[in-house]
Amino acid sequence: MNAATAYGWKKKILRIDLSESERRIDRFVPEQSLLNDYLGGRGLGAKILYDAGRVEALSPANLLVFATGPLTGTTTPASGRVSLSTKSPLTGTIFDSNCGGSFGPAMKKAGYDAIIIAGKSPEPVFIEIEDDRVELKSAETLWGENVKATTGFLKEKGSGSVACIGRAGEKLVPLASIISDATHAFGRGGVGAVMGSKNLKAIVVKGTGKVAISDRAEFSKQKKAINRLLIACPTISKGLSVFGTPFLVKITSWMNVLPVANFRKGEPEQDFNLKPFFAKTIEEERAPKRRACYSCPIACKREDKGGGELPEYETVGLMGANIQNPDYEAVVEANRLCNDYGVDTISVAGVLGCYSELRGKGISPEELVNLTRMVGDKQGVGEELGKGVSSFAASEGHPETAIQVKGLSLPSYDPRGVKGLGFSYATSNRGGCHTRAYLVAPEILRKPKAIDPYTLAGKAGHTKIFQDRFAAVDSLVVCKFAFLGAGEEEYANILSAVTGVDYTSEDLMLAGERIWNVERLYNVREGFGKADDILPDRFFEEKVNGRVIDKEEFLKTLDEYYRMRGWDEDGVPREGKLRRLGIRRKK
Amino acid sequence: MNAATAYGWKKKILRIDLSESERRIDRFVPEQSLLNDYLGGRGLGAKILYDAGRVEALSPANLLVFATGPLTGTTTPASGRVSLSTKSPLTGTIFDSNCGGSFGPAMKKAGYDAIIIAGKSPEPVFIEIEDDRVELKSAETLWGENVKATTGFLKEKGSGSVACIGRAGEKLVPLASIISDATHAFGRGGVGAVMGSKNLKAIVVKGTGKVAISDRAEFSKQKKAINRLLIACPTISKGLSVFGTPFLVKITSWMNVLPVANFRKGEPEQDFNLKPFFAKTIEEERAPKRRACYSCPIACKREDKGGGELPEYETVGLMGANIQNPDYEAVVEANRLCNDYGVDTISVAGVLGCYSELRGKGISPEELVNLTRMVGDKQGVGEELGKGVSSFAASEGHPETAIQVKGLSLPSYDPRGVKGLGFSYATSNRGGCHTRAYLVAPEILRKPKAIDPYTLAGKAGHTKIFQDRFAAVDSLVVCKFAFLGAGEEEYANILSAVTGVDYTSEDLMLAGERIWNVERLYNVREGFGKADDILPDRFFEEKVNGRVIDKEEFLKTLDEYYRMRGWDEDGVPREGKLRRLGIRRKK
Repeated sequence: MNAATAYGWKKKILRIDLSESERRIDRFVPEQSLLNDYLGGRGLGAKILYDAGRVEALSPANLLVFATGPLTGTTTPASGRVSLSTKSPLTGTIFDSNCGGSFGPAMKKAGYDAIIIAGKSPEPVFIEIEDDRVELKSAETLWGENVKATTGFLKEKGSGSVACIGRAGEKLVPLASIISDATHAFGRGGVGAVMGSKNLKAIVVKGTGKVAISDRAEFSKQKKAINRLLIACPTISKGLSVFGTPFLVKITSWMNVLPVANFRKGEPEQDFNLKPFFAKTIEEERAPKRRACYSCPIACKREDKGGGELPEYETVGLMGANIQNPDYEAVVEANRLCNDYGVDTISVAGVLGCYSELRGKGISPEELVNLTRMVGDKQGVGEELGKGVSSFAASEGHPETAIQVKGLSLPSYDPRGVKGLGFSYATSNRGGCHTRAYLVAPEILRKPKAIDPYTLAGKAGHTKIFQDRFAAVDSLVVCKFAFLGAGEEEYANILSAVTGVDYTSEDLMLAGERIWNVERLYNVREGFGKADDILPDRFFEEKVNGRVIDKEEFLKTLDEYYRMRGWDEDGVPREGKLRRLGIRRKK
Repeated sequence: MNAATAYGWKKKILRIDLSESERRIDRFVPEQSLLNDYLGGRGLGAKILYDAGRVEALSPANLLVFATGPLTGTTTPASGRVSLSTKSPLTGTIFDSNCGGSFGPAMKKAGYDAIIIAGKSPEPVFIEIEDDRVELKSAETLWGENVKATTGFLKEKGSGSVACIGRAGEKLVPLASIISDATHAFGRGGVGAVMGSKNLKAIVVKGTGKVAISDRAEFSKQKKAINRLLIACPTISKGLSVFGTPFLVKITSWMNVLPVANFRKGEPEQDFNLKPFFAKTIEEERAPKRRACYSCPIACKREDKGGGELPEYETVGLMGANIQNPDYEAVVEANRLCNDYGVDTISVAGVLGCYSELRGKGISPEELVNLTRMVGDKQGVGEELGKGVSSFAASEGHPETAIQVKGLSLPSYDPRGVKGLGFSYATSNRGGCHTRAYLVAPEILRKPKAIDPYTLAGKAGHTKIFQDRFAAVDSLVVCKFAFLGAGEEEYANILSAVTGVDYTSEDLMLAGERIWNVERLYNVREGFGKADDILPDRFFEEKVNGRVIDKEEFLKTLDEYYRMRGWDEDGVPREGKLRRLGIRRKK
């Protein structure tokens, strides 16, 4: 990499301390070397959180780090996402979550690579940002409102992009999300509760500036190259772009990896009709509108003609067959409620899967809607459910029914039939998550090339490579779907054109490995270790569709994975590895 | 109190984040209401730390808050001190420590009410401040140097006031202090280890500004009134001013409260000669020079003619009879070593008392000097000793020999004979400390009026009042010795003259109570409770000089104290009390 420039990155971080005694708004210039090494987004967030030391998730000392990447706000394809890093109240790990829409580009155009929120306001507030103007305003009248009303109110006042919490975040529900522009979720790890714990209702950002590009001609050339690759990829152009993510339902059910009855069965009961959940059915019956995030040619989001967002694949899978609810309409409604209260759809579905197993019958459509509302409002049994699947199952005396890793419930792919993906759940640093390594791509979608989903052989290496790769992608911050068609080579090229810093695909992979190791160190510091890199016993003990995971083989693969990572036998990064990555271990 | 002004306070706080990813220097304006309610110094530090949430003491997330008060930098008598607040690695409680000299006045003249240090530098650094200019500089060449060499080097470069750590702080010894201008210690709670954990070697401050005074005529009048009261007080004018703090040795030995043999005996062995430790002997034999802190007419510090500081009362008491060392010269040498390595004299003496009891013989003069050096250098047995008396006694299997409260070893007054002081040790929020309530004044020095030291009757109330009083005094920040002659009435008057905000003595007492409660909430949040508000069993079980503390009476007094404080039976502040003090309970 060559010398530093002011291109791509804004080289300005906004930091807001909400606390009574240290309340202030300041701006600082991050080191260029930090941006070079950690890129932005998730990487920058991880480094900031690791450097900041140990905190409790709901303490004022926890930080919310909203971070863009060097490509954000340019017209690089699929670069419209934005990352949020914080310590999770649900998993206790370092956590990042990214969402699409236009919040990230707005931040960048307002002049900021990142916005760090520290402290806790004594009164509910929201933050209003328009370029250099940054103000804290009272949110007393908004407190108690859900996401759609809050977003509507704030949008009425201006044209900024909004990120806010609903009642779930206010009530510190550990499944709470932050929702941007009413439908894009910073989901999974309860980041909405962290925002709620700071008495911060919303952030509104409007930016009128531009992102400087070092070499415009080269940028145009690379952009064309990427767009061509996206179009040339049938998974995108004939799948995602046409049907949105629910196109996966048919594929996973055909592969028998669509979870059924809390991951206990291979197929739905005979009278359970999957057809209403298929993307083709939805397309034919509703003819939904296509929606795209900022600067994205894929346009995978779908909404009803009358407005109202439609659920993604994970939600459709987990709120349908896995809880034995046959009604797609109820999933649509529950999904909207999740977005309105600001709670995570996968996690709500996960805990309902456990609930349904424990009481021995499926969740009816009415129950799905009512229970979702109760989780969002922290009412009745919703309070216990809202603590997440690990806590709920333990409180019921049946921890074995919690289908999760590190407290995060699993997404909608049964690991018995996608063993690499299962291994990546176990070694994920934010808990049971499919997007860390996104082995959905090679094991299910056969991209960039197909690998055998039914074996663990070779999966230690695949997991490492894909974890590193997507750590870099999350730091750029680019949508993973683009990587079904394009590769890190093309994004390294466009990154070089934007920033004027020479990046190769190897540089990106190395940055990804650096970020992964910083995140591991964070979790090791929190007490996580080998015992946490494991799947629920069910997958080692109960055959489904004739498949099970061999525990001995799994543990051998884990040892192999640690060796490939340069970690010791307990999964702690060795000094030599850290030195090569330029990371200092911190207390 | 009337409207806000810019007098007294600078209304500017300097905040420096040393971490790699958030490194920056910023300045912010604290709310006037915060300054009105918490005054400055310890109060401001407590509020900032409480608002900042839970952290580990040696984590980058811990803060160092150096804070002056509204009177600092004026010529108010005895206003030359400066406060430092942080979470203690020794006690796990909130901690503040204040020291004299000129560091505080220099901060204030440079334009800052407080300096907050956050984060951890990847490399050793020091901070250089001259008015608006604030720079981080490499301390690579200073790392490994002790206090005197470090201070000498930094003083050579300019005329600023220095606060630095020695090798003990660098090595994270839990007894480490921060030392200002080579002889003034921020002592007791291991604050030097916090500074070391941040890779911060020193802060140098030079200020050329002035502190604005609202009503100069009234200020002069009040200053004269205070000076007159100080001179009129014989404890000051014929005690402290003539002999320095060691004048107490004769008084406490006469009262039989000078601790002997780790608080196990009433008097030294017959062949132990106390005379060399008496202030009069020291005065006659060495004719030391008087030294005063900035703007202090008392001038209680003493140094040898050839330079070299002499030990204070606590050090003389605890490094002599209590460890059965008969050699005053060895105490002088050990005291200087403590200041050079940057370790706390009381705590080193305390752990040596325990060490001597466990091995069944006193500490020889040579051993005192050698062991002090080993603690400072974290070598040999010094490593275990340096962890403090609770840790050391526990590791030896004899926790009962640790004479401490909340891990902080007791100062040089046997609580059996000064029962109020003993009760104040137990209820102190920073562990076994005489300066929280400073009942030395009424129980030993009979100021402002004598109270019976041999009973617990009435001591719940006295403790509360004196705790609140000195919480305010530590926040102003004024030396407690001034309160042997003057009172909160006079200081409220001069505070009003300086700031233009009307304060009465009741306002000061209320501020003190507010601060005490914030500190209590901090400790409650850390898990401290009733079980920690207790003295070592020895004082309830072993008679010395025919005196013992009745445990039942002690516990009744504790209940009474909680009631008077408006706390529940576990010592947790009740909502009503917090509401009246304008405090919000925080997670």
